[in-house]
Amino acid sequence: MIVHLSKDLSQNDIPDLALSNKAIWYESAEYYVFVLPSSIKELPNNLQNHAINNWVLPDDIQLASRIYQDDVREVKWANSITGGGTNNTVMIAGPCSVESEEQLEQTAELLLEQGIKNLRAGAFKPRTSPYTFQGLGIEGLKMLDKIRSKYGFGIVTEVRDATNVEAIIDYADVIQIGAKSMYDHGILKRCGKAGKPVLLKRGFGSTLQELVQCAEFILSGGNEQVMLCERGIRTFETKTRFTLDLCGVAYLKENTNLPVILDPSHAMGFAYGIPDLARACVAMGVDGLLIETHPNPKVAKSDAAQQLDYDVFRQLMGTLNPVAQAVGRQMV
Amino acid sequence: MIVHLSKDLSQNDIPDLALSNKAIWYESAEYYVFVLPSSIKELPNNLQNHAINNWVLPDDIQLASRIYQDDVREVKWANSITGGGTNNTVMIAGPCSVESEEQLEQTAELLLEQGIKNLRAGAFKPRTSPYTFQGLGIEGLKMLDKIRSKYGFGIVTEVRDATNVEAIIDYADVIQIGAKSMYDHGILKRCGKAGKPVLLKRGFGSTLQELVQCAEFILSGGNEQVMLCERGIRTFETKTRFTLDLCGVAYLKENTNLPVILDPSHAMGFAYGIPDLARACVAMGVDGLLIETHPNPKVAKSDAAQQLDYDVFRQLMGTLNPVAQAVGRQMV
Amino acid sequence: MIVHLSKDLSQNDIPDLALSNKAIWYESAEYYVFVLPSSIKELPNNLQNHAINNWVLPDDIQLASRIYQDDVREVKWANSITGGGTNNTVMIAGPCSVESEEQLEQTAELLLEQGIKNLRAGAFKPRTSPYTFQGLGIEGLKMLDKIRSKYGFGIVTEVRDATNVEAIIDYADVIQIGAKSMYDHGILKRCGKAGKPVLLKRGFGSTLQELVQCAEFILSGGNEQVMLCERGIRTFETKTRFTLDLCGVAYLKENTNLPVILDPSHAMGFAYGIPDLARACVAMGVDGLLIETHPNPKVAKSDAAQQLDYDVFRQLMGTLNPVAQAVGRQMV
Amino acid sequence: MIVHLSKDLSQNDIPDLALSNKAIWYESAEYYVFVLPSSIKELPNNLQNHAINNWVLPDDIQLASRIYQDDVREVKWANSITGGGTNNTVMIAGPCSVESEEQLEQTAELLLEQGIKNLRAGAFKPRTSPYTFQGLGIEGLKMLDKIRSKYGFGIVTEVRDATNVEAIIDYADVIQIGAKSMYDHGILKRCGKAGKPVLLKRGFGSTLQELVQCAEFILSGGNEQVMLCERGIRTFETKTRFTLDLCGVAYLKENTNLPVILDPSHAMGFAYGIPDLARACVAMGVDGLLIETHPNPKVAKSDAAQQLDYDVFRQLMGTLNPVAQAVGRQMV
Repeated sequence: MIVHLSKDLSQNDIPDLALSNKAIWYESAEYYVFVLPSSIKELPNNLQNHAINNWVLPDDIQLASRIYQDDVREVKWANSITGGGTNNTVMIAGPCSVESEEQLEQTAELLLEQGIKNLRAGAFKPRTSPYTFQGLGIEGLKMLDKIRSKYGFGIVTEVRDATNVEAIIDYADVIQIGAKSMYDHGILKRCGKAGKPVLLKRGFGSTLQELVQCAEFILSGGNEQVMLCERGIRTFETKTRFTLDLCGVAYLKENTNLPVILDPSHAMGFAYGIPDLARACVAMGVDGLLIETHPNPKVAKSDAAQQLDYDVFRQLMGTLNPVAQAVGRQMV
Repeated sequence: MIVHLSKDLSQNDIPDLALSNKAIWYESAEYYVFVLPSSIKELPNNLQNHAINNWVLPDDIQLASRIYQDDVREVKWANSITGGGTNNTVMIAGPCSVESEEQLEQTAELLLEQGIKNLRAGAFKPRTSPYTFQGLGIEGLKMLDKIRSKYGFGIVTEVRDATNVEAIIDYADVIQIGAKSMYDHGILKRCGKAGKPVLLKRGFGSTLQELVQCAEFILSGGNEQVMLCERGIRTFETKTRFTLDLCGVAYLKENTNLPVILDPSHAMGFAYGIPDLARACVAMGVDGLLIETHPNPKVAKSDAAQQLDYDVFRQLMGTLNPVAQAVGRQMV
Repeated sequence: MIVHLSKDLSQNDIPDLALSNKAIWYESAEYYVFVLPSSIKELPNNLQNHAINNWVLPDDIQLASRIYQDDVREVKWANSITGGGTNNTVMIAGPCSVESEEQLEQTAELLLEQGIKNLRAGAFKPRTSPYTFQGLGIEGLKMLDKIRSKYGFGIVTEVRDATNVEAIIDYADVIQIGAKSMYDHGILKRCGKAGKPVLLKRGFGSTLQELVQCAEFILSGGNEQVMLCERGIRTFETKTRFTLDLCGVAYLKENTNLPVILDPSHAMGFAYGIPDLARACVAMGVDGLLIETHPNPKVAKSDAAQQLDYDVFRQLMGTLNPVAQAVGRQMV
Repeated sequence: MIVHLSKDLSQNDIPDLALSNKAIWYESAEYYVFVLPSSIKELPNNLQNHAINNWVLPDDIQLASRIYQDDVREVKWANSITGGGTNNTVMIAGPCSVESEEQLEQTAELLLEQGIKNLRAGAFKPRTSPYTFQGLGIEGLKMLDKIRSKYGFGIVTEVRDATNVEAIIDYADVIQIGAKSMYDHGILKRCGKAGKPVLLKRGFGSTLQELVQCAEFILSGGNEQVMLCERGIRTFETKTRFTLDLCGVAYLKENTNLPVILDPSHAMGFAYGIPDLARACVAMGVDGLLIETHPNPKVAKSDAAQQLDYDVFRQLMGTLNPVAQAVGRQMV
């Protein structure tokens, strides 16, 4: 159950009220937001005098539910807006990993040419082997900061674990929580207080229910700027790296109020299928698209097979707006 | 290895030549087509004098491979064409099951109104419980025949097992092999000699490799009119009925010469997500789209949750052509 | 709902009674067994006068349910019994495919030496490629018949599709329905009238619910001798061929009255892990064990990697009885 | 490639040597252990003079590989030993979560009665919903410490994310890394320096390859005491909570030198199947068994359905040793 409580209440009384109702709470601009366990179906007595409104939810998808808020939340990026009244599909592009300043300069050139406002690149890479490239770490974040200062891109970059969450909060415009870190309580709870938009990727072995419940950790911490990202789930099929779950996207669009961003690059794992998939994603009417592109994919230090070269990327970009317009949206 | 042998060869010599090379063969309009195990990488001596051409294949995807034939095969439907030089995306619609003549008349009215030329409906239903509606059987096929005679639709209907394959070959314009029957040798081998187009659905637990190899059973029987259908695979996610595998579709488009038809209805399992998914399928640039629709889904005898009512179906149809055109195709 | 109806009823009245209640029925030794849709929760009026007993079931697992019959059904093999009051774990061994009389003679020698009474081998192989060995067909069945006549083994062999079901019913002692044919209505319905025990393998992409519902097709045809076989399901893990689902076996043992046979050979796909898995299966307290063994696995015409050579097989056999005894059972 | 380098080398020279070879290294009792990327197949020149031995590995499973070390590593628990020359199967039992001192006292009583030396219970719970019990945190660890001081159990307890890794290292005898944290670099790297045994659980959506590679993060940090734990993977089957992957266990036993511990409680998710599964695990010849048990499962604050009550647990314990002995092992 979600309860909006009046700000007439003294902030001093809030912790006890929350504790007695097993509620998680935060303070929004207009009221105190209490979230009680979903098993509670009637407004508790000690909240009745101060409750402005309340919502009974069938399960622990609460703040993210369309039952609580029927419109898609508006999320403000550095240079763009998704959700809310917009019909924007935001484009985010860049390499898998920050590798060098030169590589970021080449990326910047491409993005400027294509009118893309948001750059993605990872500095802390959650690799599965200790014996491969692990990312440039803080040095990589500094390179991203420099390219942002120069060109004004919004920077989307990934937190790997709770030991680097502060660094990412400092440097990113949009904090990306990667698929392998989706359940990380250290990250989720800290992001609830981060004051910056969060892009939460679905774990490749995680259900839609779990994805949205992880978003609830952030939302219930008071950060209302959360976006969900589908990037492919793991199935028995091995000809492609993962399986992009567009049925799941249809479910998220119908049942949650969070913007949905699609990452076909990780799902496919091979450059050849990504343009078709990217168009399919845009035709789904989603809020954003993440595409990996690299000046020279063959020598990329991570995910070489799935990064588009610039020619293919340019061709793809030329085809996205017509599809977006066919479904009443625009690429931004 | 595939070998095209000259028709100068006496047909009497063919069986022995095939046997000595462990080849499956059929006679096309222009030559004898021999398919040898893919482990054979050099043209056998006793075929050299008669071989017009030959192709070495890396695995047992042979006749369906882009290595053998780089263009998508042209398949002739009753009233439309897919693949080949066309950029057609053929529309097939109708109820899950034939339930009554009245229901088919209502379907016909809708299809005529929407300019749809191909009607789908099942008479032999591969239900998982013996205690539910099993389809009208031959009576259902006769109803389909009557509606075809009256309105001229192409009829797509499903063979359930080898005991009804003759009936389906008699009555259908396009023989549908359902997901649960994908491996059925009795059906596959008979369809190799059927002389009618075959729509082969991917088993929900089957790999792409297995799907295409099952198509090879039909192709190597001499039936060159085979289409593949992705209809959702079974994964750990249960919020939707199945998971539509568009990464797999990208793989099939890249690697096989068979037209690809998409069935988002069975994948999603719920009406609400199907329009978005249908548009995504069309944006993938596929060769056809199967959509289930019912005059009154609530009382449907099978798959009630996933059949679109006519209002939703009409709205969907209005949006498909713009998406098709945005990717250089047209709905037919 | 299952209803036992008195044999006082005239057999002439049964079809109408069944039709009016949408019931499937058969005649057992003692009564007519009617199975109505599980949605029916109250005994219909027109059955009340003749009903001896009735059971309300929560879903379409009916005749196989522990609610209907709390003991495991006793199934009579040619030379052994499973289920019922016995604590028998029946051993079935042999090659994947019948390849030659010599191979079967070698198999017979091994089985006699080890005191194994049931021989398995396939004559109709459901291969996924048309370009590989497809089995010896009727010739293979004749070889099995000959070896049976000579040594008295019970023969377990597989029906591939409805076009060979009559041959298998003629030649087999226990009819095996393979994983790829689990849903085959042509086979299931015919086996309901076969009068021989049926070993129904779980499809590798099939749920436990679907497996048991397929058994219901056979049971409701009047064949009360059905056994379930777990042989591995398809998951994301590819280091092994399939994933043996022993949690599923625990579910089947708890909820169904059908004997459960385990096939670790197909699950593992590699000889090295099969002895450990076979011991684990026996420790689960199951009713039977299927193990593939070949006189020379390296040259086997199908499933070469997973067939045990005779030395390994002998070592395995020496370890099974101690495990069986530790859980209160005996190998037969 | 793994290289053992002589301790004649000055420690000052090591970092540069490692850097120039992209090697991760640690110092064991007898030599410096360098692990180079597995793509390197020949001993580099600058290591040749100091190399005592080296191993070429086919992929990034290196320190955990049987190619490097053919025997199972011996791991010393507080009160027991697994692996090495022993044939021990260590028993670990206790509740899902620490709930109270009283609950731990009851657990202690049961364990003492049954001769079990290792107690498991979680204080930091990685729940998927923020609105449910999250564990007692540090208070829970203190309760565990108190019960250890009193009775001498070895304590196995779980680290949730990098923010509580120090606390767990302080309090635990064996550090458990849970399924949802398997990829957590913050945890893995810290555990490489922890000086205590680590029990690494397989993520339910993670491959065997990934599991072992995560172990490599710990091993290559210099912690040679790593155990792997199979606790069920996520598949399409939903009648049970997860699917225990014993085929995977067979793979791990064959290919890695790490002890393997089995957790059938989380796999099954329901008390009824766990005894059968536990016996199957022991029959596999594994190194340890984790079983959840609770004085009153119905009121458990987490995982209520899968915790055994004490009567069932006692019955189970009575059956494990006979199975262990049948496969040449003993429960400790």
